[in-house]
Amino acid sequence: MHGLIVKLTARPGQRDAMISILVHCVQNMPGSMSYIVAKDPADENAIWATEVWDSEASHDASFTLPAVKAAVEQVKPMVVGVQSKVVTQPVSGYGLQRDSKAQ
Amino acid sequence: MHGLIVKLTARPGQRDAMISILVHCVQNMPGSMSYIVAKDPADENAIWATEVWDSEASHDASFTLPAVKAAVEQVKPMVVGVQSKVVTQPVSGYGLQRDSKAQ
Repeated sequence: MHGLIVKLTARPGQRDAMISILVHCVQNMPGSMSYIVAKDPADENAIWATEVWDSEASHDASFTLPAVKAAVEQVKPMVVGVQSKVVTQPVSGYGLQRDSKAQ
Repeated sequence: MHGLIVKLTARPGQRDAMISILVHCVQNMPGSMSYIVAKDPADENAIWATEVWDSEASHDASFTLPAVKAAVEQVKPMVVGVQSKVVTQPVSGYGLQRDSKAQ
């Protein structure tokens, strides 16, 4: 498994719009086992995305999906920057979707 | 929803044992919607736990569960410390378990 923990900062006032686009986009991505979007209560412009993929290749391939490409284009102007990005190796836990289907 | 992103460091050689205890423990916690344990590929002693709870109260209450209390006692001597801990407000995403039952 391949994991990511990413903190993104939105332009002022655009966090909610950015979250809406992201949570809609992440519902049907082959190889995605978990993708949760959270607000940072300590920073009104920041969000955290925590992701688990069955492989790094599936994560990379997600950027070729039409829905993801469209979301990236929409979100790009809303983003100030990536504050932190940690790559992890998920082992196990609760909530992992093991039956993720190809689109 | 209430979220946590926690980086823990284990004593040398004890990371795998710590992970085994954690992933076993997190399967049946009322109010838990996601709890994923990952290795940090950049630090052979570190793990990341990413958690989503239906409320902060459910998270707090989990520490009163016999299985969690036992796990905490087992894990405590294996832990060097908490390297970072971020509280989040999860909004939505993929993989959240919405039908978590009370034990």
